[in-house]
Amino acid sequence: MNFSSKILEEAVEQLSIMPGIGKKSAFRLALFFLKKDPEVTQRFTKALMTLKSELKECKTCFNISDQEICNICTDPTRDDTLLCVVEDINDVMAIEATHQYKGKYHVLGGVISPMDGVGPMDLHIDSLVDRLNTQDYTELIMAMNPTLEGDTTQFYIYKRIQDLGIKVSTLARGVSFGEHLEYADEMTLGRSIHQRMLYEQTVKKI
Amino acid sequence: MNFSSKILEEAVEQLSIMPGIGKKSAFRLALFFLKKDPEVTQRFTKALMTLKSELKECKTCFNISDQEICNICTDPTRDDTLLCVVEDINDVMAIEATHQYKGKYHVLGGVISPMDGVGPMDLHIDSLVDRLNTQDYTELIMAMNPTLEGDTTQFYIYKRIQDLGIKVSTLARGVSFGEHLEYADEMTLGRSIHQRMLYEQTVKKI
Repeated sequence: MNFSSKILEEAVEQLSIMPGIGKKSAFRLALFFLKKDPEVTQRFTKALMTLKSELKECKTCFNISDQEICNICTDPTRDDTLLCVVEDINDVMAIEATHQYKGKYHVLGGVISPMDGVGPMDLHIDSLVDRLNTQDYTELIMAMNPTLEGDTTQFYIYKRIQDLGIKVSTLARGVSFGEHLEYADEMTLGRSIHQRMLYEQTVKKI
Repeated sequence: MNFSSKILEEAVEQLSIMPGIGKKSAFRLALFFLKKDPEVTQRFTKALMTLKSELKECKTCFNISDQEICNICTDPTRDDTLLCVVEDINDVMAIEATHQYKGKYHVLGGVISPMDGVGPMDLHIDSLVDRLNTQDYTELIMAMNPTLEGDTTQFYIYKRIQDLGIKVSTLARGVSFGEHLEYADEMTLGRSIHQRMLYEQTVKKI
């Protein structure tokens, strides 16, 4: 597209860095902001800047948080003998949306993936083992996405903690293979938390 | 969605004001910005703020511009006896992309639409008549979108300037009725500029 304005061109350029937004959509978004009051753009940009500058990572579970320790970790009504380990923060939100889980979380920040150069040391696995060692948990739910990397990560974690005497479970495979947690409907995901299986049983089946 | 963070919630709220962006997409965009370097968000927000604060409206043709008078109006290589009147700035860009037109523009800022409470006084029609009165134009091309409102606007403009002795043409109707200019492919739109017809002829046909 040929813009008669460098300012507009730069705005379109910047808007199109967003995933899923091409040049045409970016141009339409630029016109949208142009036609709105300055306060709209101000609120919009302020929210994004605050997101980058003030959002923290919870020191306990590595979920996103406004404080040093997140709302879920400090919530006294939640069961702190139950721990659910997930890949990423969007998985926390997907599970929370089911209202089926009232324990705590541990966010790994990814999965073991040699292809992408991600090893166990790049993830929050040591801190997970620390938590399991220092606090009393009755069960660890492994809620990785049903992919090869997710399975590998679950197996790696299981191997590291199997001697701790904690029940280790994994989500029921109601979610079809290759489908990511955040796209599953809440019924399916909620049921798969309820019907979670002992990890040992799933390994024996393979 | 249930966010464990007010900051994230506000960012998602703000991202979802953009047309075509729902809450789920907004959340994914928020994660996208979270994972990028702070400079990325900084450049992004700066471009939007600059867009709002520094982009001007050309005093001659009402196209967007970085200066008081836009690049197209000041371009000495363009034919200033040819004037093309369009609804909005995206129509200027659509026509420019065809590389078939080398005259000047006049942006109305909309179309006459009694249903939406838009009358001739709300558009840059007086200034168009002024331009046609004070400068020597050989032809006025009316390039409204092929809608009822576009046709009404063309007819209104034609009535106001028919006695000026300027040739008044309109785009060839290669573009199907109800399709907007900015979505037409460049071949079709370019050809419809070439095959423009005398407005009188199209009125007689009705």
